[in-house]
Amino acid sequence: MENLKTLFFDVFGTAVDWRTSIVRELSTFGARRGVEADWSAFADAWRGLYQPAMEEVRSGRRQWTILDELHRESLTALFERFEISGVSATDADELNRAWHRLDPWPDVVGGLTRLRGTYIISTLSNGNTALLVNMAKRAGLPWDVVLGGETAHAYKPVPEAYLRNIALLGLEAAQCMMVAAHNDDLVAAAKLGMRTAFVLRPNEFGPGQTTDLQAHADWDVVTDTMTGLADALDC
Amino acid sequence: MENLKTLFFDVFGTAVDWRTSIVRELSTFGARRGVEADWSAFADAWRGLYQPAMEEVRSGRRQWTILDELHRESLTALFERFEISGVSATDADELNRAWHRLDPWPDVVGGLTRLRGTYIISTLSNGNTALLVNMAKRAGLPWDVVLGGETAHAYKPVPEAYLRNIALLGLEAAQCMMVAAHNDDLVAAAKLGMRTAFVLRPNEFGPGQTTDLQAHADWDVVTDTMTGLADALDC
Repeated sequence: MENLKTLFFDVFGTAVDWRTSIVRELSTFGARRGVEADWSAFADAWRGLYQPAMEEVRSGRRQWTILDELHRESLTALFERFEISGVSATDADELNRAWHRLDPWPDVVGGLTRLRGTYIISTLSNGNTALLVNMAKRAGLPWDVVLGGETAHAYKPVPEAYLRNIALLGLEAAQCMMVAAHNDDLVAAAKLGMRTAFVLRPNEFGPGQTTDLQAHADWDVVTDTMTGLADALDC
Repeated sequence: MENLKTLFFDVFGTAVDWRTSIVRELSTFGARRGVEADWSAFADAWRGLYQPAMEEVRSGRRQWTILDELHRESLTALFERFEISGVSATDADELNRAWHRLDPWPDVVGGLTRLRGTYIISTLSNGNTALLVNMAKRAGLPWDVVLGGETAHAYKPVPEAYLRNIALLGLEAAQCMMVAAHNDDLVAAAKLGMRTAFVLRPNEFGPGQTTDLQAHADWDVVTDTMTGLADALDC
């Protein structure tokens, strides 16, 4: 790993357990407002609208729009689909910020803290900057810098989402490693010349997960925790 | 200070002692390469070209250009002015990165660490992202997020330099405080509705400093250290 300077981390699923956190936030919201629903199904449906919403931007059909806004639109659509009515705009805005309050997997803070001693550690998430900063502050994620879709005006796996953030750090792709629980993220990064680390997160999508249950290529590192990544990189 | 969420810090002069650091870097360069010059005068001249170079961008005469590049062009001009020849491009590039290796004033790491417990702390510097991240990593500056000219594509005191970075955090100006050793930075921030803190740095420009030796307005906080700022904000 000579010349490796910076580790770029995917966040949703790789660093934080979005599903458990969102189900918790939705359940709290429901209990407070007297709304009943299958909140696990609601969380999965909310995440289900994530890729289609970003695809509108990737395809150029829609101008650059931050993830908070895409999440908010999806939430409105889901209230209708789940036949939930009467939620005020203020309450919906607050619930939308659930994505700013996701908990890290238990290995993350310890692993990142070790990795940070040797490398610059950065987010490279489709989350917008405010979302990532608020999440990091609450969860104690010790990023050196917060980069992602919003600083590139492009959503992964579009090449510019990686390249513009690498350029912001004044680096070449080969000096950077993409760390993700998703093979498609690593495929895109590797094509650009980045190093790759796969972190297995078999419960990201809950007990029935069928995707990303193994590394689909010979990634530079394959592990199942951030502490395992720190071990692999001798940190 | 109700509703205050984020402290934005000017960096050159406010958080780091650029002059002492640059004189040290130039002297080391000179000793290694057998080049003699008045390095204090060279450092002052290098900084002297800072505002004129940014003004080309602010005025629209020149398209967006990061500070590393402006510094590098100034360095070439100064080699000529100081009659220094034969410096390789590689050596000049390395010397140019002296601006990534500035030391903080002694109160800064302790003060920021206290402030970080209560507020999001961000740079709001005309330095480019790589410069600020490399500086923070070397000096141990515990920023939550690294923002500045490059993330706004605008140089302070142009309003967009403040407003676009505030928007990246999803905030309103009144939720943010600008912390700077320069009254003009605070004038621009206050006009936009930001809170203001003046940190006196009477030796930023060396022993003969004539500017910013006092607060020129009734800023929300006036202090001479980051620990003083932490005291003022009850952190």
